[in-house]
Amino acid sequence: MAVVIELIHTATLLHDDIVDESNTRRGKETANEVWGNAASVLVGDFLYSRAFEMMVKPGSMRIMTILSKATNEIAQGEVMQLLNCQNSALTEKEYYRVIERKTAVLFQAATQIGAILSNADEQQELALRDYGLHLGNAFQIIDDVLDYESDSETMGKEVGDDLSEGKTTLPIIYALENTSGKDRELLVNAIENADNSDIEHVVHILQTVKAFDYTRSKAQESANLAKQSLSNLQDSDYKEALILLCDLSLQRKS
Amino acid sequence: MAVVIELIHTATLLHDDIVDESNTRRGKETANEVWGNAASVLVGDFLYSRAFEMMVKPGSMRIMTILSKATNEIAQGEVMQLLNCQNSALTEKEYYRVIERKTAVLFQAATQIGAILSNADEQQELALRDYGLHLGNAFQIIDDVLDYESDSETMGKEVGDDLSEGKTTLPIIYALENTSGKDRELLVNAIENADNSDIEHVVHILQTVKAFDYTRSKAQESANLAKQSLSNLQDSDYKEALILLCDLSLQRKS
Repeated sequence: MAVVIELIHTATLLHDDIVDESNTRRGKETANEVWGNAASVLVGDFLYSRAFEMMVKPGSMRIMTILSKATNEIAQGEVMQLLNCQNSALTEKEYYRVIERKTAVLFQAATQIGAILSNADEQQELALRDYGLHLGNAFQIIDDVLDYESDSETMGKEVGDDLSEGKTTLPIIYALENTSGKDRELLVNAIENADNSDIEHVVHILQTVKAFDYTRSKAQESANLAKQSLSNLQDSDYKEALILLCDLSLQRKS
Repeated sequence: MAVVIELIHTATLLHDDIVDESNTRRGKETANEVWGNAASVLVGDFLYSRAFEMMVKPGSMRIMTILSKATNEIAQGEVMQLLNCQNSALTEKEYYRVIERKTAVLFQAATQIGAILSNADEQQELALRDYGLHLGNAFQIIDDVLDYESDSETMGKEVGDDLSEGKTTLPIIYALENTSGKDRELLVNAIENADNSDIEHVVHILQTVKAFDYTRSKAQESANLAKQSLSNLQDSDYKEALILLCDLSLQRKS
């Protein structure tokens, strides 16, 4: 099942790189850059369908229901994100709706399935399911900070990629609510024209209004919720590892 | 389950039109032409995953196994087709391997699942499964004739599309085996350069060597095998309809 999750994830990345017209990921050329869109579309479809073939084998209706629903929600999240592009009026609530679907539901499915496969009781299963959801949200929120804050060598992709695609992520949403005049106008234009040519200025504005601090604080909230979800599970090395994963998702640089 | 089959089929078409960079399908602009590659990739993924969600609901392990395997084989067929592009040395056997996967396995899954859902016995189920496979092959072989023979108004897409993508289909394979000198050279160059600028000349050569007659005869063979698969089923209006479908797949103009 870990392989199934990984194949689904990889399939979404192959297709995402077509959607975003990305040239680099994890410090290397993307598949669509090397082999073109055609191969990336079809090999993504191959990985998706192979994942479905694999998830059928154990014969668990519950696992299939969870994973097929999660995969469909990921696609919904991706379509929503596409529709939201270049929208400078996107609300924080709408942003959370997108990241929960495009990212967190796969974390959620992964942790819930782990519980099911190890015959956890219902309370444990729900705890792990909630943990995955909140961890996924924390992970994505930090991702959206790193897109502006990191450098391309550390991150393995370009700084300001989100802006160049017109993606209205949390740092931008917060800054739009807390700036006025020319600064706000510059942010609105950058998003609405999907233009990151003035990325240094945009980053400077985001820093000035403490948009990264705010965004990191929201990631911290999600990570705290993830940890709290585990509170009724008995202590173990495994629980400790899950808690450390929350901290790691906040501290990561790439 | 009919909806599931249709959604999977539609998803493959959305993705195919990206792969082939097609502008028209069924006489209308393709989704990628109207909304771009990004929307077509993601909405295709949405349809695929919704189809998987729907196929889980009836709770039949056999149906899920058949459909997930079929979907993965379709992706394999599409990847094989991509790898075969601009290959003038493709054999008839390799051609059949591709069309069976990219087209016929979905027909096969559809007819087999119909048998399963109506509690057919094993002999009936295998008969309908084989029927679907052969019908699908006949359908695709005729498709590959129509790509050269039909006109764009009847067909709803451009004549010679396959050639412009460097797809080595049965009419070309047969003609390459039955021409020599300059004619053969022209066909080899057209395939290897994915060049349909001299489509009239190519069609003339295909007609001269009776490549369309040969290809249609192979479709007829597949249609006959489809009909023979039904021989042990008792006569009924439904069986009659399935037989007529074989004839229709041979006679269709678009």
